[in-house]
Amino acid sequence: MQQDPLKSFGLRLVQLRKSKGLSQEKLALESGIARSYLSGVERGQRNIALLNIHKLADTLGIPASSLLELPDD
Amino acid sequence: MQQDPLKSFGLRLVQLRKSKGLSQEKLALESGIARSYLSGVERGQRNIALLNIHKLADTLGIPASSLLELPDD
Repeated sequence: MQQDPLKSFGLRLVQLRKSKGLSQEKLALESGIARSYLSGVERGQRNIALLNIHKLADTLGIPASSLLELPDD
Repeated sequence: MQQDPLKSFGLRLVQLRKSKGLSQEKLALESGIARSYLSGVERGQRNIALLNIHKLADTLGIPASSLLELPDD
């Protein structure tokens, strides 16, 4: 396991969200996920489950597997 | 979102587990995950979260992202 999978996921999510030009608020709204929850996910403080990973991936227009790849340095 | 992300994940996990020659019992034991829970995950009945996805991927010796790819037909 990499050092902290939750932090890596959060970083990766932020990178992908920004690459799509989406604000945190807009991603939350379009995914049907509470913004406070999304904020916690992006900070690596939430152990997000599969269905929410898929909701985010769908909104970002990417495969869910891509969200689990390592973030860019 | 694909038809049922939980069922897809379960199928994919079964395929990868078998490709490694691991029984469900052995994968559960080595991952530190209850076998009854793992069984539910493989049947698409559990909304598995990120830390457990990583535990399974580590035991299988694959990147976590690989577990979220679509199963083979």
